[in-house]
Amino acid sequence: MTKEEIRAVVISKLRLIPKAVVWDIGAGTGSVAVEAAILAQKGTVWAVEKNPEAAALIEQNRTNFGCENIRVVCGKAPQVLEGLPEPDRVFLGGSGGKLSEIVEVIYAKMRPGGIMVADFLVLENLVEAVGAMQNCGFCEVEAVQVAVTKAELVGGKHMLKAQNPVFVVSGVKV
Amino acid sequence: MTKEEIRAVVISKLRLIPKAVVWDIGAGTGSVAVEAAILAQKGTVWAVEKNPEAAALIEQNRTNFGCENIRVVCGKAPQVLEGLPEPDRVFLGGSGGKLSEIVEVIYAKMRPGGIMVADFLVLENLVEAVGAMQNCGFCEVEAVQVAVTKAELVGGKHMLKAQNPVFVVSGVKV
Amino acid sequence: MTKEEIRAVVISKLRLIPKAVVWDIGAGTGSVAVEAAILAQKGTVWAVEKNPEAAALIEQNRTNFGCENIRVVCGKAPQVLEGLPEPDRVFLGGSGGKLSEIVEVIYAKMRPGGIMVADFLVLENLVEAVGAMQNCGFCEVEAVQVAVTKAELVGGKHMLKAQNPVFVVSGVKV
Amino acid sequence: MTKEEIRAVVISKLRLIPKAVVWDIGAGTGSVAVEAAILAQKGTVWAVEKNPEAAALIEQNRTNFGCENIRVVCGKAPQVLEGLPEPDRVFLGGSGGKLSEIVEVIYAKMRPGGIMVADFLVLENLVEAVGAMQNCGFCEVEAVQVAVTKAELVGGKHMLKAQNPVFVVSGVKV
Repeated sequence: MTKEEIRAVVISKLRLIPKAVVWDIGAGTGSVAVEAAILAQKGTVWAVEKNPEAAALIEQNRTNFGCENIRVVCGKAPQVLEGLPEPDRVFLGGSGGKLSEIVEVIYAKMRPGGIMVADFLVLENLVEAVGAMQNCGFCEVEAVQVAVTKAELVGGKHMLKAQNPVFVVSGVKV
Repeated sequence: MTKEEIRAVVISKLRLIPKAVVWDIGAGTGSVAVEAAILAQKGTVWAVEKNPEAAALIEQNRTNFGCENIRVVCGKAPQVLEGLPEPDRVFLGGSGGKLSEIVEVIYAKMRPGGIMVADFLVLENLVEAVGAMQNCGFCEVEAVQVAVTKAELVGGKHMLKAQNPVFVVSGVKV
Repeated sequence: MTKEEIRAVVISKLRLIPKAVVWDIGAGTGSVAVEAAILAQKGTVWAVEKNPEAAALIEQNRTNFGCENIRVVCGKAPQVLEGLPEPDRVFLGGSGGKLSEIVEVIYAKMRPGGIMVADFLVLENLVEAVGAMQNCGFCEVEAVQVAVTKAELVGGKHMLKAQNPVFVVSGVKV
Repeated sequence: MTKEEIRAVVISKLRLIPKAVVWDIGAGTGSVAVEAAILAQKGTVWAVEKNPEAAALIEQNRTNFGCENIRVVCGKAPQVLEGLPEPDRVFLGGSGGKLSEIVEVIYAKMRPGGIMVADFLVLENLVEAVGAMQNCGFCEVEAVQVAVTKAELVGGKHMLKAQNPVFVVSGVKV
């Protein structure tokens, strides 16, 4: 699951609008999808997840949080993306093997003014995605590393415990 | 001005609700106040700022972003806080000298279920604030360090440029 | 055990000289003591450790690495420090409760031109130690946070795995 | 110039031995060369630098620090490397364009048991170098990101000021 602080940065960079059509690719348990659905309350969030058990969890979270505007799609990107309506906003998490291809399909189907955000723990995937986004035609491609360190209470004092840093990439289709 | 990613984490931790009464203490140019005002659209954001020029800038941003639910209060904390309505949410930025006293006033005036969030660049202020929040009675006091590093495009490649890390502290009044 | 990269920074800040009398307080398994003993090959490293099992491990590492200039002292700081010869260099790791007192004894017994280095995971200890060092009379008191993130090979690619950041503090007795 | 803490990590990972033949490629002002020359006091440090003004500065630092075992070579890698004696240790800093080619020459000329260390600010160079090192045959290829944040004294308190994080890569030729 995307950690709270990283999710906050991702959601902020998506600059969601009420009527947005959103793709959440590699939706996991749906933590980003739920937050996106609340902000895009008159739009639709397409939560794409290849793992059927995770997809079932998203369905459950959809009910728990009352997000009727989430549609769960169990399948693999990029193939499954072809059948979805054109997005205004795309979040790509948990990237698997066909990264460049997925980026190309996102760019091709995205509406003008659309925003793509992705996060990465793997350096090679980061570099591949940034390269693919620039090659496709995305503008204002930006990558930030976000490193969160919790100050945990141990014996009445605060110890620093690091979380793994995440790269958050974003770009705009003009 | 609070940087984009830090602001995203602060706003996320404030868990704003539509009718919230919000205090933004040390509001600076109002970047947090504006985001809070959009999310607490049926509530009010009290932007407290001691510097008259900064206060004038908040007024301007209030107009630019159409946030009629922002009230700018030019004055010093903790004195000026006494006259404000009881808050549900408080963000404390740009902390000056009377940190412990300010935390005590916040706790005393905050409604049950309220959330306080603060950010710090200065280690001693962080430690003082966390101690004061625990002493007052705040629950779930938590501190996270958020370090953002931008990958800037230089000659077609990405160089890592660090921003100063910020500690974000939060706590709940039960 | 102090991790490799942190130990490198600590050793660098100690600016060891061949004839140095070194105290390693809270020596743990002796990883800093061994490196210091190699660089201060004509001096002596006093490895102070309260835990008898750890002290036995230092003795063993002393033999393994052929560092005859390490003397293991099993006991508690600050009491045990009174009986040791005046140091040129002090490393304080694994700080327990009597931090300010330990810093005072170090300063009182240190030779002019001496250097003290300490590392901290706990914020309150960091702030207390820096304050105590400044109050005692240490000059050029400096604190740096060192955050190391390993790029681990997973499936032929590199994932970022964070280690907990450490504060390294240093100061000089003029 | 390589910053103090990063230099400490680089020097530590080079595991210098007294008789080592060292190449410092992209030696800049010679800060790594000088430290390496002190530790490899019976060996030789070949400081390779393409910029004649920087090369002159290394010559000066060679005199200032009494490091007679530094040889300054003004020229471009990889061409200039062919004429140098086979190295036991190589530090590659300030990498320019021909990264993969330079890594190949280093591996080809390095003696068995040799160690290569490099540092990078640029993500694409990091990924290219790690890939090239693995392809050449380097073992135990490792990359760590080191992020140093100074706690600077401002008005009697400590503000966190970040330095740009650096990736340090190392590998062994078996």
